[in-house]
Amino acid sequence: MDKTSMFTLTYGLFVAGVEEGGKKNGCIVNTAVQATSDPMIMTVTMMKDNLTTQLIKKKGSLTVSVISLDCPLDGIGSFGMRSGRDCDKFDGIEHKTDGNGNPYLEENTLAYMSLNVSSMIDLGSHYLFICDVVEAEKTGKGQPMTYADYRALKSGKTIGKANYESDDESDKKAYVCTVCHYVYDGDTPFEELDDDWVCPVCNQPKSVFLVES
Amino acid sequence: MDKTSMFTLTYGLFVAGVEEGGKKNGCIVNTAVQATSDPMIMTVTMMKDNLTTQLIKKKGSLTVSVISLDCPLDGIGSFGMRSGRDCDKFDGIEHKTDGNGNPYLEENTLAYMSLNVSSMIDLGSHYLFICDVVEAEKTGKGQPMTYADYRALKSGKTIGKANYESDDESDKKAYVCTVCHYVYDGDTPFEELDDDWVCPVCNQPKSVFLVES
Repeated sequence: MDKTSMFTLTYGLFVAGVEEGGKKNGCIVNTAVQATSDPMIMTVTMMKDNLTTQLIKKKGSLTVSVISLDCPLDGIGSFGMRSGRDCDKFDGIEHKTDGNGNPYLEENTLAYMSLNVSSMIDLGSHYLFICDVVEAEKTGKGQPMTYADYRALKSGKTIGKANYESDDESDKKAYVCTVCHYVYDGDTPFEELDDDWVCPVCNQPKSVFLVES
Repeated sequence: MDKTSMFTLTYGLFVAGVEEGGKKNGCIVNTAVQATSDPMIMTVTMMKDNLTTQLIKKKGSLTVSVISLDCPLDGIGSFGMRSGRDCDKFDGIEHKTDGNGNPYLEENTLAYMSLNVSSMIDLGSHYLFICDVVEAEKTGKGQPMTYADYRALKSGKTIGKANYESDDESDKKAYVCTVCHYVYDGDTPFEELDDDWVCPVCNQPKSVFLVES
């Protein structure tokens, strides 16, 4: 099995938000999917270890903000790179609150959905939340950022199909996190990173990275 | 609730394939997602009414072929537009067979995954298949086609972010299927279509279409 073939799957880019017991938290997710339209059901898969996931499990609801293509990385970087255990991730970031009291982003987004968790499937490292959509409104115009766009931006590349195509001609090997698909782009060669180095996006160890050529 | 805000979600484009009792069938799906990486679990959501879905339910396994951006519509159009009840959808289309005997596409694809269904969640109109990934191999190089690319191509547009941006400046109203997101592009005004007209992609009635401006 070539595990890197999983990197060909396409995802969007979202911020999941929740407020529980006075604590607001959020994190980047890429697996928010509409499952049925009548009634409106969405599924969201999230890592159990995340503080946001634990708060969602407790609260039974969340928001999903759809990130727009022109969102500056500064605007969403804090959701992926810091743990909300040490800070309020929505602090200093424009946000509104849905009917459940959960925060969502209005700037640099196309829409938000307010979700009530109807069931939670235990998938080992992750929970699959099956959710009723109770609010859904547009917040902006434009195109959504895809997870591929996000990875390209984080690697300092421009976005667009032309860029993708030129990538294919390169034979440069890339170390890719099999959990969150983060592409390592540091100055230190990957092999020389400390053994306790972890993925800056999902905090998984070096061992989950695979070489993709 | 603005149901058209669901159109901002990003999806990939895949062909789900199955062989059961001598019958090979396949259909286009957009909701194939990796849920966990250790073990490798994917989820796929599919309409119950589809013959492919019924065969997958019976067989307990399927393939997912990841369609490449440069795939001609001719190559995949037959999977979405015809019912496999009347024909063999893989007839005349290059394909291989996985360890379960299920067909997958090798041409115009980036990868395929072979999935064993471990559980099936009933979501009303759809089943959510939770699957163990038992094979996964790359079949080509390039970029994946997204569901947005597919919709643009079907409307006779070129693909690329520039095209997407110019779309945003247009005020043209579009009739969009809330089930499969197909954008109506026929010559007859939508309002004048016969009452028994159905979506050419998912066979849903006119009533599930919404106007998106």
